[in-house]
Order: sequence, then C-alpha cells, then structure tokens
Amino acid sequence: MTPIVNASPLTAPPTSRAQQIRIFLQRHNLHAWIAWRPDELVMLSGYVPFWGASLLIYFADAEPVLFVPQIEPRDHIPAGLRVQEYPWGDLQCRDPYSALVSAVGNELVTAKIEPGQVGMNLSSARTSLPIQAAEQIPIPEGFAGELSALTAKPDAQSQEGFADLYLRKTPEEIAAIRLANRVANVGLQVFFENLKPGVTEAEVAAAVESAIYRQIGRGGIFHSRGWAMVQSGPNSADAGRFNRSTGRRLETGDLVLIELATCVNGYWSDLTRTSAVGTPKAEVARILSVVRDAQQAALDAIRPGIPAGHIDASARDKIAAQGLSAFFTHHTGHHVGFRYHDPGFLILPGESARLEPGMVITIEPGVYVSERGGGARIEDNVLVTELGHEVLSRIEGYTDGADDWGTGL
Amino acid sequence: MTPIVNASPLTAPPTSRAQQIRIFLQRHNLHAWIAWRPDELVMLSGYVPFWGASLLIYFADAEPVLFVPQIEPRDHIPAGLRVQEYPWGDLQCRDPYSALVSAVGNELVTAKIEPGQVGMNLSSARTSLPIQAAEQIPIPEGFAGELSALTAKPDAQSQEGFADLYLRKTPEEIAAIRLANRVANVGLQVFFENLKPGVTEAEVAAAVESAIYRQIGRGGIFHSRGWAMVQSGPNSADAGRFNRSTGRRLETGDLVLIELATCVNGYWSDLTRTSAVGTPKAEVARILSVVRDAQQAALDAIRPGIPAGHIDASARDKIAAQGLSAFFTHHTGHHVGFRYHDPGFLILPGESARLEPGMVITIEPGVYVSERGGGARIEDNVLVTELGHEVLSRIEGYTDGADDWGTGL
Repeated sequence: MTPIVNASPLTAPPTSRAQQIRIFLQRHNLHAWIAWRPDELVMLSGYVPFWGASLLIYFADAEPVLFVPQIEPRDHIPAGLRVQEYPWGDLQCRDPYSALVSAVGNELVTAKIEPGQVGMNLSSARTSLPIQAAEQIPIPEGFAGELSALTAKPDAQSQEGFADLYLRKTPEEIAAIRLANRVANVGLQVFFENLKPGVTEAEVAAAVESAIYRQIGRGGIFHSRGWAMVQSGPNSADAGRFNRSTGRRLETGDLVLIELATCVNGYWSDLTRTSAVGTPKAEVARILSVVRDAQQAALDAIRPGIPAGHIDASARDKIAAQGLSAFFTHHTGHHVGFRYHDPGFLILPGESARLEPGMVITIEPGVYVSERGGGARIEDNVLVTELGHEVLSRIEGYTDGADDWGTGL
Repeated sequence: MTPIVNASPLTAPPTSRAQQIRIFLQRHNLHAWIAWRPDELVMLSGYVPFWGASLLIYFADAEPVLFVPQIEPRDHIPAGLRVQEYPWGDLQCRDPYSALVSAVGNELVTAKIEPGQVGMNLSSARTSLPIQAAEQIPIPEGFAGELSALTAKPDAQSQEGFADLYLRKTPEEIAAIRLANRVANVGLQVFFENLKPGVTEAEVAAAVESAIYRQIGRGGIFHSRGWAMVQSGPNSADAGRFNRSTGRRLETGDLVLIELATCVNGYWSDLTRTSAVGTPKAEVARILSVVRDAQQAALDAIRPGIPAGHIDASARDKIAAQGLSAFFTHHTGHHVGFRYHDPGFLILPGESARLEPGMVITIEPGVYVSERGGGARIEDNVLVTELGHEVLSRIEGYTDGADDWGTGL
C-alpha cells in the first residue's frame, strides 16, 4: 500500500456502518436483520440494552425499529430510532415474548418482507452483556425458535458475513472504544498505586473496579463497569489459563498481573498489565522483560496489509529466541470493541487474514513459568490506521476525579 | 401443621439434595441428567464453573462425572467428583465442543444409557453466571443441538420437575446462602456509611461492590462479587422498573435505594434497602414507612403451609390501606439462592402454591411515586422453617476487615 502523506493517524475506514450493513444485506439477499444480542444492538444502532430483552429489526430500505420491554429505561436510547414497547411485568403479563413475536411478525408483514429475506443469529455464546449483568439475558430458548419461523433458516454464510461486520470500526465507534480505554486507564492507575506488600489480590482488583464504576455520570458516561482480575507471585503463572483474584497477599519482588475488561456505554476495552511489588525477583524479571520486547515487536509490525500470522510471529519469535516458546500458550491477539472478545480472525500462527484500517485488535503476548514462580502478559488495544497503527490504551497523565472527559467524546 | 416443640428454627427439609434428585429422575423415567447451566452445576454438585464451559452428567445409579476445559482452575472443584478434562485453546484446539460431545456420548454408552433416558435443559435464559462473568457463557447454539441428539426430546414436564428442585434448599445450601447474605451485609454497611450529600449514586455503589469483592480469601470465600445499583431522590421512583446508578449527587432529604445482588462461592443473595440522607422529606417519608409496615406484615405471615398469595396480600393490603396500591407495581417476592432469581412460583396475588420448610424467598414490597419524587423498597431473604421463618439477611454488628467469617460456614 502507498502511505498517504499528511493523513491523520486516525483515518476513517472506507465505509460507514450503514454502508457496511447495506453491502452485507445485499450480498446475502436479505431485506432485514433481526438483532437481539447486546453487541449486535450496539453495532447496528449504538443502543446498549439495559435488561437484555430488546430486539431490533434493521431494514435494508427503511429506518430500524427497536422493541423494548415496558420497564426499559429510555434515556439512553439513541435519538432517531423508532421505539415500540412490549408488555412486561409479573403482575401485567406472564408471557411477554408472545406479544413481542407477534409485533415483530406484524412489522415484517407491513414491510412486505418474506421469512426467507430476514436473517438472524440464534446463539448468545460469548456475546456482550446488557447493563443489568447479574444474570444471563432473559430471552428464552423457545423465543429464538418462534422467531426463527419468521426468518431464513440460519446459514453459515450469512452468519459469517455478519461476523465480518465487527471487523472494521467507524470513526464514531473508535471514539467510543477510545473512551473505554481512557476509563480503563483510570483503573490501571489505581492498580499501580496499590502494589504494596500485604494487600490482597482481591483488594487491589476491588479498588480498580470501583474506580471504573465511579466514572458514571462524568462526560456522557451512563454505563461503566470493569472486571478486574489480579494474580500475584506464583498465581501469575496461572494467567495463561485463567484470570481471577484470590486472597493472596502481595510480597516484595512479586510479579503482579492484572487482566481488566472494561465496558463503557456498551463499548469494550481488554487490557493486561504486569508490574512488580518493588523490584521483581531475578528469576521473574527476565520473563517480564521478554514479554515487553515481544509486545513491542508485534506493535511495530502493525500496519494495513500485514497478515495476522506475521504479527503473531513478530511476538512469538522474540519469546522463542529466549527459549521460552513453550510458555507462550495462547494467541497474540483478537479483535475487540463491541465485546470483551469480538468475533473475527485471531492473531495466531499462520493466520493469513490481513489487517485493514479501522480494525481494533489486542496485542497480548504472555509467558507463564510455574517453575520460576511467575508469569507476565502485557495487552494493549491497537487501532490499525492508514499509516500504521495507534495504541488506544496508552494514556498519560490521567487522574480519577475528573468531572469531564474532555472534548470529542 | 403441628408446631414442633424445642425444634431448632433451622430444621432440615425432609430430603437431602441427592434424594430430591433421585426422586425427580425416577418420576420422569430418566437415568441421567446433563447439566451445563451454572446454577444447575452448583445445585447438583456444589461446583461453580469458572469459564462457564463445564458439563456434568448426573447419573441415577453412579457417581457424577464433571467435564471441564483444560484451562479450568481445579482448586475449587469439590472433592469426590470424577473430573474429565477436554481440550481447549486457540493454539491447541479450534473446536473443543466436538471432543466434549464425543466424550459425553462415550460416557452414556459405557453406562448403557439410551438417549430417551437422559434429560437436559437447553435454555440459558436468566441462569446464573460463571466466575468469569465479563461475557455470556461460551457454549454455542450448535453444541446444545448436538447434545440434544444424546438426550430425550426436552419435554415441559421434566423441565418443570427439574425447576422444582430449586425450591427446597438443604441445610448445606442454606448455610451457603446465609454466607452470601452475611457478605452482602458488609456491602450494605458501606452503603449506609456513604449516604452523604454530594456523593454520587455511582460512587456509593462502587464502594459497596468493592467491599464485597474484598472478602475473597477470607473464611473459605473463593468467589465474591456484588452488583450494586443505587437510586436517589427522584431516581428512586424508577426502582420499580429498573435499577442502576447514575452520576446524580445525593441531597439532604433524599430517599436512597440500593438493589444489591451478591454471589458468594456460587450462592446468591438479593437484597434491597431504602434509607435517607439525613431526615427524609415529608412527602417521601410516608412512602418509606408504608413499605416498612408492608414488609413486616409479609414477614409475619410466613410459615409452612401458607399460600404464596396470602403472603403477597399481607404486604399489598397494607399498601392499599394507604391508597398507594397503584404504586406497588411488582410481585412481593421470588425464590432465591442458586440464582439472583431462582425459578419457581412467585409471591404474587392469587398464587396458591404453599410455602414449605427449606424454601428461601425474597420479601420485597415497594412503592414508587414519581409525583412525590421518590420510591422505596425493602427486600430480605427469608428461610421458611418448620416453626415459621428466619430472616437470613438481617445481620447485626458486622464490620469489614474480619479475616475470618467464623465457624459453621
């Protein structure tokens, strides 16, 4: 590709969200798409569901219509969406979904759209969370079955085509993901401040999550939640398999790793930092230094047109050169933004899919060595730009307590 | 019923968990049940899944077998479960579920169990969360479909029969729910301490969640997470429709309501408190006082044999007597313990199902009056005992910072 002189590092991807969806629908001969998974609602309309019981019909040739339960808050529904409410409440309606299925059917009939012309994803696996996240979303199995009578038989091609819509973010979406990363950095600052001997992993993680939740109400943030998992000393060696916080108390010389998922207004950041309590012990210090080098090598390789496998190799080769390749047990990265883990190709050995402007990926090499009593991972969220890349998650000088998140959000 | 003299208020329900399951399986001519929903795993084995990708076969005539992904932590899997791991990891295995389905099939063949003799729930709607709760559980749609080839066609009767298993908790489960309520009370104490003018709703909620997360590592607690939602002043009038925290700053005279879901080691508490910043304004003070009276009336009515509708009426009549019945817009309660909201009958007008010893229900009347600028709800978790009831969620004198949760946990 030819570098564009004088372009901003944040250059718009070639198509808007509406254009991308239109091309997708045309390619699969669909006149409408029914969305109910939280991240689909965010992507198709910017709306993040509160209860997880909302449904959007996105028409190829008309304005979308959003169905929400009567009890849904309205003040975070984006302007310009046609909203229909459906009944909800144990006193008022024991089977709200029958009413919803009828209403959806009526909309499709009115629009003269046949079942074969409507697409939909049935599975909620790994999708993002509604704002009320203390249980799985309420949409029952039978509901998806009833709805599927109104839609085309799900086929792998249209589902894959839909998943491709997650790949290239628009400037508005990038701004929202940037904000999630700025908020996440407030949490990371609290993490670094709390690395003191005697504090438990859970206490550090709790302070990080608290700092993130406190941002609600500042600068247009109506939803802000973090999932922080802190692993210290020998526990950090588990971080390639799972992330959690225990009651272990930090000790001087420990490596301490934080895995941090952050959702702000429906958009996601996925970060990892590894630091130490004081000076890291010699046997783990080299692990951290190798991971830093590996991550920087992967970052340096990111630009449009590069295959994902090349990015992975850039990190993996650095780790292999230190004889540690057996301890880097996972992918180098994945797409991120509409979920903690967006669908799409992984940054994995041999992956031939190529980076494009507008993609947002994680770069997260890690090395975990139980025998040495520690593990390290560093994870950033990176935008692929026309000229190369921009790390969205490295933010300097942020402090909690700001009442305003500045302009441009 | 005849009161039992000298009985402990915490009397064991008539059957153990294993007995209840055996009776259920026999009644539906099932030789095994496949469980994968997080709350089913907790109920059938005491095991709370980390990733949400675990599966248990519960045999009528043999020890259960638990399938976990290779990356699952092992230290919180209860002793006595036979554990089989299945492959996981983007570098190692791109389709772990095929291997899992094969392994499950092999187990059933070895046990000489036919598909028609195996039951299973397909829907994840409203089920509880795995420990890693930052996205929906990963089990894909196709997986449930493949598994269902190994099971009986799901029928409403066996699904309802399974849901009935949630109703009567065993002494061990009651102890676990009691612990969740004790931890939740640490959070509530932080709530009351933070009711000061100028603090935002989100700041109060963040402090509550933080206090709950910090309990990990104390007295056998390996998992402790709260979802706190704080609504103040006029926002409290929305609490009958939804619960969330905003950036609104508390003002003197406000009613302030907290909805708090707490999960400790896989067991749930669901509580609400309403208090005031200083002395509540006159126009909302009466709302709070009516709700207190209504809740006490419902609590006073709880004992075995009483229909749920009678409990509901006890609360609802008190509110109606004050001319406020139009503002009590939801049920009086639901079962709780394996989830934020367990399945089972509701405490609702006209409900004829009767309370039994071992049931744990919420009692949560509320009155929400936008025109008066406030709403109130008080919610406790109540065990039905042989003699009457015990409120599990009213705990005196708890302070954060305890390193030990005492005996009997």
